[in-house]
Amino acid sequence: MFEHIRELIEGKRIKELREFAGEINATDLADVMDALAPEGRVVLFRALSKDLAADVFSYLEPDTKEELVALLSDPELGGIVDELFLDDAADLVEELPANVVKRILRNASDETRRGINQLLQYHEDSAGSLMTTEYIDLKADMTVEDAFRYIREVGMDKETIYTCYVVDARQVLIGVVTVRTLLLSQYADRIGDIMSGTNLICVSTSDDREKVAELFQKYDFIALPVVDSERHLVGIVTVDDAMEVLEEESTEDFHKMAAMVPFDEPYLSTGVLELARKRILWLMVLMVSATLSGEIITHYQAIFAAVPALIAAIPMLMDTGGNAGSQSSTLVIRGMAVGELSLGDAFKVLFKELRVSLLVGGALAFFNAAYKYALSGNASLSLTVGASLFATVIFAQTVGGMLPLLAKALKFDPALMAAPIVTTIVDAGSLTVYFLIARTIMRV
Amino acid sequence: MFEHIRELIEGKRIKELREFAGEINATDLADVMDALAPEGRVVLFRALSKDLAADVFSYLEPDTKEELVALLSDPELGGIVDELFLDDAADLVEELPANVVKRILRNASDETRRGINQLLQYHEDSAGSLMTTEYIDLKADMTVEDAFRYIREVGMDKETIYTCYVVDARQVLIGVVTVRTLLLSQYADRIGDIMSGTNLICVSTSDDREKVAELFQKYDFIALPVVDSERHLVGIVTVDDAMEVLEEESTEDFHKMAAMVPFDEPYLSTGVLELARKRILWLMVLMVSATLSGEIITHYQAIFAAVPALIAAIPMLMDTGGNAGSQSSTLVIRGMAVGELSLGDAFKVLFKELRVSLLVGGALAFFNAAYKYALSGNASLSLTVGASLFATVIFAQTVGGMLPLLAKALKFDPALMAAPIVTTIVDAGSLTVYFLIARTIMRV
Repeated sequence: MFEHIRELIEGKRIKELREFAGEINATDLADVMDALAPEGRVVLFRALSKDLAADVFSYLEPDTKEELVALLSDPELGGIVDELFLDDAADLVEELPANVVKRILRNASDETRRGINQLLQYHEDSAGSLMTTEYIDLKADMTVEDAFRYIREVGMDKETIYTCYVVDARQVLIGVVTVRTLLLSQYADRIGDIMSGTNLICVSTSDDREKVAELFQKYDFIALPVVDSERHLVGIVTVDDAMEVLEEESTEDFHKMAAMVPFDEPYLSTGVLELARKRILWLMVLMVSATLSGEIITHYQAIFAAVPALIAAIPMLMDTGGNAGSQSSTLVIRGMAVGELSLGDAFKVLFKELRVSLLVGGALAFFNAAYKYALSGNASLSLTVGASLFATVIFAQTVGGMLPLLAKALKFDPALMAAPIVTTIVDAGSLTVYFLIARTIMRV
Repeated sequence: MFEHIRELIEGKRIKELREFAGEINATDLADVMDALAPEGRVVLFRALSKDLAADVFSYLEPDTKEELVALLSDPELGGIVDELFLDDAADLVEELPANVVKRILRNASDETRRGINQLLQYHEDSAGSLMTTEYIDLKADMTVEDAFRYIREVGMDKETIYTCYVVDARQVLIGVVTVRTLLLSQYADRIGDIMSGTNLICVSTSDDREKVAELFQKYDFIALPVVDSERHLVGIVTVDDAMEVLEEESTEDFHKMAAMVPFDEPYLSTGVLELARKRILWLMVLMVSATLSGEIITHYQAIFAAVPALIAAIPMLMDTGGNAGSQSSTLVIRGMAVGELSLGDAFKVLFKELRVSLLVGGALAFFNAAYKYALSGNASLSLTVGASLFATVIFAQTVGGMLPLLAKALKFDPALMAAPIVTTIVDAGSLTVYFLIARTIMRV
């Protein structure tokens, strides 16, 4: 496909280009555009119909957008921006450099400019910033026939037409009706009679975008209405945006759980300095905290000076404790993220982790002690290591399970209480227990 | 809402109950049902219209489903199952005990039973197992008016009507047309003329469900056609199922990256034995691997017997190495999962991680050495710790970045090469480097 398009561009076979490109999905055309040289892009772009061009434009990489904007004339640019869905146009303003944005806004129609500015007011993590203002609004006294006529008239420019919203004279949301219901009704039916008017599910502009994604998952919607504090309908969020939020939120959790300050940009387009900055903060904090474990070892120096063989088990105890604890914290963090667990489940989690850790710790400790005894024949050493490992796993899994819940209770992000912090805490605990048990069992 | 429904049930006010419940979303009604006592559930369930009842049923918790099925009569049960979307009915068969399934299948119509059996043939991670066979299929020689008539006739039972599929006489997929296009066309237009017939995006029944989710994200579809090896249309996947896949795949990655065998069930409904089983395998493997680090410490015993102060830095080196390495592996694993990184980027990743680790390692090492020197006044000790930390971070971040790519190249799951394994490998490397540097700088 790419080769064929390039040939058509080079041969200046514009009519064939228009026909061929017209049959290709906008997402795929955007991939082609990203891969073309800047001059080729302009030729292809000009060959597209206006609404396909706008669609393709919204899928381009930020760099490609910037380069393309530089090569388009003012009227061409204005045409594209007016054709874009408003939420995409607002994203554009956020991702492009100021001088490019200026040129875009100067060439947009007054209406588009007002719409963009309105969307830009909302906080970037809010439902308001996700929504588009291009939806189908019906009135309760329309008939199904009126509704279809209205949809035919304005539907082309709306992000979805499949869920229509019913508002009163003051733009207050009073009902929802799907195109499915419209199609299955009689032409003469009144919208007010066939709409769902009670228990309407909607979000407010200031609601967190995570809440939006959760509602989409729970109710299997393809669009969700957004209202202001007086229940005026101001926009809709569509399911494709909700899916994107879901993926971004997961990525954020992955970053946080690996002790990084989360970031949105793809890995390859994030600069080295930026990447270093995102990673160093937590590494520094954790490094300083880990000196505590060093202090503990130093404090009990006399014990392993007397029995040097005790030292060999330290990495195993630290690693197993860290791994066991991070299993528990991961389960609880993820459970809260997908809405399966809440603060009220704290005791259930504690009890469950306690029982699981007895089983897991018991099995690991038994295996380890038996193995150590088989190799060394040293019963008190094997017993010391086994007992410490048992205590470590129990400590690690209960602490790992509880810390994210504690963070939630204190209004911190539970995802911060993941492997790195849990490991640091468990290390200190497990080393202390190890030396205390050694002192008791081996009498050193 | 819950209280009001309970009052209506207890007062046997069935007519009011029917009206009140009819206005509530099926998902919310399912939550109410889950919370009710079994007898109350039956009363509420019988008060619902048949298709709302089927909808509610598909959202119930597995335990509630089982209890409810036990209380329903055979004809009632048959009615519900026939009313369910086939993919939900097939899921039912997979999640309920065999004797319940038997009763369900016995009471379903022949057509439903055939449909369920067909869906059950597909592997649980395949597009086939996600799809439903209830879609709208049009013919190319229909007019728009014919299409609307057909949709009105059969649309009620189809999972989505908004994307319609055009097939030829042998059921081969030849085009796609959305209801939006239908609404914006003339009644007399031929479907064959207005459908998109080239570059159709579809999946095969055996394609992995991850691929399905990716296509939904890339193309912002609300449904995707599924074809067999001869391009016959056999079903569709809808966007709500794709969203679920996306979430399940992320959960699976979280589990794997925390050294667990992944599982689907919510945390609270997974048994203690099952949870222990999912966790113990990797802990065991990692525990045994960690003895290597113990061997290394034992091997270099003479060094820290001579300079006991060296021991205090071991936990800090191990923890920082593990954390730094898991940052890199997390970025690469997630980058591959969301399609931003591929095997071809290996050199870019290596080069980037190298530069980032020089910055991060340099800063941490400088800070640590300066701090140690300020506290101890021991220059050679501070230099040893600083140099080892520098080497550890560089080693950790390049290994952490490369291991997931290596796993991918060897057709393993990159998510396995996460914090736990990276930590174990980096520990061994960093301890070895530490003792070698100590020997060189401190001449012990």
